[in-house]
Amino acid sequence: MKVLLVYAHEEPHSFNAAMKNTAIKTFEAAGHSVVVSDLYRMTFKAVADGDDFLERRDRHYLKRQFEEQAASTLGTLAHDILDEQEKLKDCDLLILQFPLWWFSMPAIMKGWVDRVMTMGFAYGGGKWYDEGGLKGKRAMLAVTTGGPEASYLERGINGSMEKVLFPIQHGILFFCGFDVLDPFVAWGPAHQDQDSRTKVLNRYAEVLSGIETRERVPFHPLAHYDKGLQLKAEFEP
Amino acid sequence: MKVLLVYAHEEPHSFNAAMKNTAIKTFEAAGHSVVVSDLYRMTFKAVADGDDFLERRDRHYLKRQFEEQAASTLGTLAHDILDEQEKLKDCDLLILQFPLWWFSMPAIMKGWVDRVMTMGFAYGGGKWYDEGGLKGKRAMLAVTTGGPEASYLERGINGSMEKVLFPIQHGILFFCGFDVLDPFVAWGPAHQDQDSRTKVLNRYAEVLSGIETRERVPFHPLAHYDKGLQLKAEFEP
Repeated sequence: MKVLLVYAHEEPHSFNAAMKNTAIKTFEAAGHSVVVSDLYRMTFKAVADGDDFLERRDRHYLKRQFEEQAASTLGTLAHDILDEQEKLKDCDLLILQFPLWWFSMPAIMKGWVDRVMTMGFAYGGGKWYDEGGLKGKRAMLAVTTGGPEASYLERGINGSMEKVLFPIQHGILFFCGFDVLDPFVAWGPAHQDQDSRTKVLNRYAEVLSGIETRERVPFHPLAHYDKGLQLKAEFEP
Repeated sequence: MKVLLVYAHEEPHSFNAAMKNTAIKTFEAAGHSVVVSDLYRMTFKAVADGDDFLERRDRHYLKRQFEEQAASTLGTLAHDILDEQEKLKDCDLLILQFPLWWFSMPAIMKGWVDRVMTMGFAYGGGKWYDEGGLKGKRAMLAVTTGGPEASYLERGINGSMEKVLFPIQHGILFFCGFDVLDPFVAWGPAHQDQDSRTKVLNRYAEVLSGIETRERVPFHPLAHYDKGLQLKAEFEP
C-alpha cells in the first residue's frame, strides 16, 4: 500500500511529530511505502491566489474555479500544486496529521486543500462525494487536541468531535471521493505525562497496523439524495 | 458604532468585493465608522510560525500557546498581529466576509484567526466562551457559496449551513466571547443574473441597517455546563 502523509506542525519535538514518525515507522515495518508532505518544512504556500496559474484564461477577472478547470486540463497549474496532485494520484491512503487549531486545521494545511484540490482534479463535472475525483482511496485524520475528551462528547462544551470534524471529513475528504476512516484523536497530549503519551503512540501504531479493517465514518452516497439534493425520505440524516 | 470588516477575496470585481463595498457604504451612511482588513491586499501572513514572536521564551522547543501567553504580556508579538489586535479591541462589531471554500474560510483568513486570536488576548486563564477576551462585542459572518440554498438545508447534500458553520461560529467567534449574529449567506451568486445579484446586495444593506436588532445564534453560556464540561441535564444540546 502507498501512504501519503500530509503533516502540519513546525516543532520537530512535538507530539504531532512523534505521531508522524510513528506512522512512518509502522507502515514501513509492514512493507508499505510512505511519502510525507511536511508542509512547514516545505514552506508550502498557503494562500490560493492568481500565481497558482502559470497562464490565465482571463487576465482581467480572477474566477478561481474557471482557472482551475482550464489549468487542470492544460497542465498549467503551479508546479507545487502538480507535485501534490501526483502524490495524491499515487496513494492508496491519505493521512492528514495536524493539531486541532480553532476546531479546524492550521492555515497551512487549509491552504494545501484550497490549492491542491482543484476543480477538474478532485471534483467537478458531476464528480463529487462518492463519485469524487479521488474515489477508491481512503483517508484518515490524525489530530491532537488541547482540551480533554470530555469537552468533545455529545453534551460537551466544545460540541462532539464528530460535529467539529464534519466540514473536514464530509466537506473535504468525502466530497473528493475518499472513503473516510474513523479519525485518530490524541486528547490533550500537552497535559499528559511521558508514560501516557507513549501509550497513545502505541495505540496509534496498533490502529495503523489494523487500518485495513478500520471502520468508516458513515456518510450518505449520492444515490440517497433526490434531484433536489435532498436526502430521500427513507433515510435518516 | 465601530465596525471591523475582515475581508478575504483577491478579485476586486467579485461579488465578495461588492458585499464588502455595500457594507462600507451602508455603515458610513448611517454614521458608523468602518475599518477594513483586506487580507489579500495586505498580503497578510497566513502561516502561524516562530516568527510571530519577536522574542522567544524557549528557543529550543516551540510551544505556541506558551509563547503567545508570554508575548501577549510582554508586547512581543509580531507587529502585524498587534495591529489586528488593536483593531479588534477598538471595534464594537466584527464582520468576516469570505467565500465559503471547502465548507470553511480561505486559508488566509484561517491564518488571521490562528495568528491574531492569541492566548492571553482572545482567551486563556478562564476566559472562554461567554467569558472570552472579546466579550461585549458582536460578530457576524458574511459568506458566499458555490451551491444553492437547497444543498445546505437540514436534509441537503452538504449538511445544514448551521452545521457547516458550527466550528467557526461556536468554536472561534463564541469561544472568544463574541455575541454571534445570524450569518448573512449569499447563495451561489456566480449562478445568478445581475438583477438577482443586485437584490441580494440590497437585502444585505437592509440587514446591516437593522443590525442592532439582528437575532443571535443561540449557544449555551458557561453557566449551563457542569464542572465536567457537560451540558447540565435541564438543557437541550
